[in-house]
Amino acid sequence: MRRCALIALIALLVSAPAFSDGGMWTFQDFPHEQLKRAYKVDVSQAWLDKVRTATIRLSNCTASFVSPDGLILTNHHCSEACLDDHSTAEHNLVRDGFLARTRAEELKCGTQLADVLMDMEDVTTKVTAALRGLDDKAANDMRKKTLTQLEQACEEDSKHGKFGPLKCESVDLYQGGQYWLYKYHRYDDVRLVFAPERAIAAFGGDPDNFQFPRWCLDMSVLRAYGPDGKPASTPNFLQINRAGPNAGDVVFVSGHPGSTDRLLTVAQLETLRNVDRPLWLLRASELRGRYIQFGKTSAEAARIIEDPLNTLENSIKVRRGELDALLDDRLMQSKREEEAALRAKVAADPQLAQATGDPWAEIEKAQLLEHQLYLPYTFLEQGAGFNSHLFSYARTLVRAAAERGKDNTARLREYRDAALPRVQQRLLAPVPAYPALEKMTLSYSLERMREWLGPDAAIVRQLLVKDSPDTLAARAVDGSKLGDPAVRKQLWEGGAAAVDASHDPMIELARSVDAAARAVRKQYEDQVEAPEEAAAEKIAHARFKVYGTSVSPDANFTLRLNYGTVQGWREDGHEVEPFTHLARLYERATDQDPFRVPDSWLKARDSLDLQTRFDLSTTNDIVGGNSGSPTIDASGHIVGLMFDGNIHSISGAYWYDTALNRAVAVDPAIMVEALRKVYKADGLLGEMHLK
Amino acid sequence: MRRCALIALIALLVSAPAFSDGGMWTFQDFPHEQLKRAYKVDVSQAWLDKVRTATIRLSNCTASFVSPDGLILTNHHCSEACLDDHSTAEHNLVRDGFLARTRAEELKCGTQLADVLMDMEDVTTKVTAALRGLDDKAANDMRKKTLTQLEQACEEDSKHGKFGPLKCESVDLYQGGQYWLYKYHRYDDVRLVFAPERAIAAFGGDPDNFQFPRWCLDMSVLRAYGPDGKPASTPNFLQINRAGPNAGDVVFVSGHPGSTDRLLTVAQLETLRNVDRPLWLLRASELRGRYIQFGKTSAEAARIIEDPLNTLENSIKVRRGELDALLDDRLMQSKREEEAALRAKVAADPQLAQATGDPWAEIEKAQLLEHQLYLPYTFLEQGAGFNSHLFSYARTLVRAAAERGKDNTARLREYRDAALPRVQQRLLAPVPAYPALEKMTLSYSLERMREWLGPDAAIVRQLLVKDSPDTLAARAVDGSKLGDPAVRKQLWEGGAAAVDASHDPMIELARSVDAAARAVRKQYEDQVEAPEEAAAEKIAHARFKVYGTSVSPDANFTLRLNYGTVQGWREDGHEVEPFTHLARLYERATDQDPFRVPDSWLKARDSLDLQTRFDLSTTNDIVGGNSGSPTIDASGHIVGLMFDGNIHSISGAYWYDTALNRAVAVDPAIMVEALRKVYKADGLLGEMHLK
Repeated sequence: MRRCALIALIALLVSAPAFSDGGMWTFQDFPHEQLKRAYKVDVSQAWLDKVRTATIRLSNCTASFVSPDGLILTNHHCSEACLDDHSTAEHNLVRDGFLARTRAEELKCGTQLADVLMDMEDVTTKVTAALRGLDDKAANDMRKKTLTQLEQACEEDSKHGKFGPLKCESVDLYQGGQYWLYKYHRYDDVRLVFAPERAIAAFGGDPDNFQFPRWCLDMSVLRAYGPDGKPASTPNFLQINRAGPNAGDVVFVSGHPGSTDRLLTVAQLETLRNVDRPLWLLRASELRGRYIQFGKTSAEAARIIEDPLNTLENSIKVRRGELDALLDDRLMQSKREEEAALRAKVAADPQLAQATGDPWAEIEKAQLLEHQLYLPYTFLEQGAGFNSHLFSYARTLVRAAAERGKDNTARLREYRDAALPRVQQRLLAPVPAYPALEKMTLSYSLERMREWLGPDAAIVRQLLVKDSPDTLAARAVDGSKLGDPAVRKQLWEGGAAAVDASHDPMIELARSVDAAARAVRKQYEDQVEAPEEAAAEKIAHARFKVYGTSVSPDANFTLRLNYGTVQGWREDGHEVEPFTHLARLYERATDQDPFRVPDSWLKARDSLDLQTRFDLSTTNDIVGGNSGSPTIDASGHIVGLMFDGNIHSISGAYWYDTALNRAVAVDPAIMVEALRKVYKADGLLGEMHLK
Repeated sequence: MRRCALIALIALLVSAPAFSDGGMWTFQDFPHEQLKRAYKVDVSQAWLDKVRTATIRLSNCTASFVSPDGLILTNHHCSEACLDDHSTAEHNLVRDGFLARTRAEELKCGTQLADVLMDMEDVTTKVTAALRGLDDKAANDMRKKTLTQLEQACEEDSKHGKFGPLKCESVDLYQGGQYWLYKYHRYDDVRLVFAPERAIAAFGGDPDNFQFPRWCLDMSVLRAYGPDGKPASTPNFLQINRAGPNAGDVVFVSGHPGSTDRLLTVAQLETLRNVDRPLWLLRASELRGRYIQFGKTSAEAARIIEDPLNTLENSIKVRRGELDALLDDRLMQSKREEEAALRAKVAADPQLAQATGDPWAEIEKAQLLEHQLYLPYTFLEQGAGFNSHLFSYARTLVRAAAERGKDNTARLREYRDAALPRVQQRLLAPVPAYPALEKMTLSYSLERMREWLGPDAAIVRQLLVKDSPDTLAARAVDGSKLGDPAVRKQLWEGGAAAVDASHDPMIELARSVDAAARAVRKQYEDQVEAPEEAAAEKIAHARFKVYGTSVSPDANFTLRLNYGTVQGWREDGHEVEPFTHLARLYERATDQDPFRVPDSWLKARDSLDLQTRFDLSTTNDIVGGNSGSPTIDASGHIVGLMFDGNIHSISGAYWYDTALNRAVAVDPAIMVEALRKVYKADGLLGEMHLK
């Protein structure tokens, strides 16, 4: 009831229909009643369990099992880093695509992994009990310690549990309103099976990104392997329905939306609007220009820069859309009204008012400190001043050497035991390092650090007296051996003694700035994070009291399920249809990238059914991280592969705009048509029962 | 009285002292009473006349006469383009500086000119009469036509006047509240006499730009020549006082502040905040990255890019500061309150309310159209889609060919007779063109046009079907002969026939987009500019009724005078002193640009008085365009050379923040010390009576 009031308010502002498909629901708290009311449809617990255990969290995306032998369907852009890592000047897999004709040809993705959520455990009362009576700063430290302890105990316990050893991760829902342990089965051997050429996977490139109508075959196929080096057995796979959905069909999306900020206070949103988003965009836009010009210096430079550039341009489009949304008075006004409504309800209940206090004012106060600490924290601790893969390796080695010597609960959270296998995988993966690119990005970030912190900042005076950004970057990169995985392995295994003894200039650089970076992090955690977390918990409890869990928690790259329908929208007075067809791809093509159709598709043209459905739009509420999510019908079949949203979907970071927000998926029809006629991938089709 | 109320409001918000030094006053409406009240000081009409006629408007800056033989003092950064135009791979004047030992060695600045304001005439009643009874759109056209007619008649009349032939320019003060004719004596032969090395002129480079304390010798010396090729006779010069000012001294700044937006409505400020500034910054930041990487491809590329990069980085810092100011709720809240106060006063006076109507609502309505037209107008008409000097030449040639055939009052305003000499000077100046840079900037801007207008926009489909941004830019630049001034001259003199017959690919490109660009310009003028102008005039008249001219008009690169004192400020709880000294320059220097002191200063170090004052800060209210302005004491002597403001001064675009806004000048003491001991410029010192 209360939620309806809230929705009605938003709906009024956006002239939306009377109900909303918004909401990124957990599997343990799925709103069956709401779904039934809206569409007279429901899903069973068995359906939920099957979908949950067929859904995969990749390191950067979502995916799903589509055969009993570990076959995984996801987007092309989720595998682009893997394609890139296997590419050379001679063999460019990003450009040319890849198909393993046999299992032996499947290529290991060095930094990829596949997690499946097997179980969830509510630990809210345990965390709350541990924090009772502590001040904000002490509570912030204790919260981390407690979560580390709970994870550690959980992993120990799981060794004797029904699913075998699991990875346990604590999950914070509703800004501290609930704490859970999520327990994953992890596949850390993931291999590449198929990817089309990028020119068709991302037809239209950056100009078309977040646009619809669209013609992208943004798919790739991976396979999970077990520790025995054999394809994983995955009986809980989802069958693809080659016919795809029809307009108006109810569809579900299971996946891992990365991050939303819908429950932030107005003061926090203003910090994003006034500080974070503009500064990030300025830095990223310059880096984009540098990347593009770097790519023009040679064919090899162009190849090297393609994947980082694609990633950056995507992020720029997202952040730009987010800034637009934050600058939209309609959004901010609705947020102010939501906040005022909740505060009024709290004030009207003396007991609740007493328990809640004024956490909104506390968060507002923390924003002033956030503004002051934002630049040093961003440049020193968050890496904006040291943009370099080699530096990241160096910082990992320097910090891990120090942290691994401490008690598990006393460490920086990212070095707790439960996190170390992932840290090690990323550190030791045989990913190529490109010195020219490393020097450019490191010099760029040092130069910006000097600009933003000012030439008189201590860290700048420390690094840039004898050196310029260019000379410092050149010395650190050219002198470093960290590009060699064997060297990294030796330092990782050698621990503190080996790292301390190293004179690698990148290690020396990371070491020389570590104390300052840790100091600003501690300051940030104590002065910004601690009061924000404490206040957010109070708001969360007040919200539960007033609205229950009728609003879904913010996204945080944990598993969610949402529902919607296959539907277009009304843009500037005309209807956008929910489906595109193959014929229009050829009409829209030009002679030049990114609108050039690859040769394989030009050659196959006459054999293809030009009426085949290509991409489609739905009302599902998704954001980045949902890429590669299966779009599922009520009978549990895959009827689409989510890969994007329309331009309005970017405002989904802050609210769900029913009238305009649309998710965008690849239709199964074009996947089957392409695999059969363009790529002749009969083996794959057979394994997916699509032959 | 009323102004005091307004100031008190702002003062309250910024905890400023009880009076303000803000205000960019015209010479015809200088606030003597206010000055006397604040400082018990006044200036005579003779003082005003002398300062006015000793002040120079350069094409991009301010300057002043400092000898009777046409010697001009301005900033180094105002002459950087001229230094750059005379530089080659072998002789880099930007890097090495320049000193003409004889007049014969003085170097002509091809696109520079020096205008001196001889007379001002109020034509408000004439313009108002011409517009009476017209609707907004017709009034907007008629306003331009009338102003062109008035200028034309004025130039004719001046031929028989006491000052000889003058350039007449219409000036709009108070957003249409007043119209004036400003009458200039023009020197179109301006030559370079002296410039120091950029490393000392802009010590600290972009990191230190808009910072204080500061150590920049941002000076250069030019000379105006008459049509006879002899140095101009300028008896009305200002004498430099080598001792400089003392802390607390009252000082005046005469100059041409470029642009402020203090009288805009809240709706217009929101357009700047939400649309214009963010989009501009995104584009400029990428271009910055491209420039920097371009510069790294060779020593010559580094030289070529230096001046454009300096200009761009300066603009980025300004726009970034402006966006920060617009995102500052303190500013917006004060603007809302100012607007509400004026509206309340209008509403309280039935007659005024009747005459005024609701122009604020009309402006708000126009903003919706502005948002819609912003992108096509910016890319097509304002050149953001065609960033190339050669394209600018081509557009000028194509448009001038069409416009010069029309009646003077029927032309696009920038091609009216009064403007043509300046158009011709810019078109025909022997400025070097660099094809690699041209291709890069043109490709960049085409690519962004495709991104922002979308791949399906008509102009994008027209240009980028067969071509990519790179191939189109390469074809247009490599095939064009417009880099040769002789070719441009021949097309200019050949008029429409020659231009129409040209197959130069850049001319063809400009021609192919001209109709679309003109169409969006017309749409913008009719739908945005016309209602905005009409509404702004109504607000201006209401403001005069309520507040008189107690608030100064917005800056628009016409001559203004303001007063202030030599003063530091309080930053983060500590006092910033108003003077810097030479000793600290050497302490602050590093081994690397932009903090490397040039060799000449290292060599001269032992001979220099390290206690010499270097730069200084004052409370004068200045913005970009004031660069090079003389800072003058009450006795009419130059006691400083304005070159910058502190970081807070950037918010001066929207308000004057008494507590924090400071202007930054070069102290005469360091100019004399450097000319004497570092540059041994005895002749110059003698001519300025400083020996």
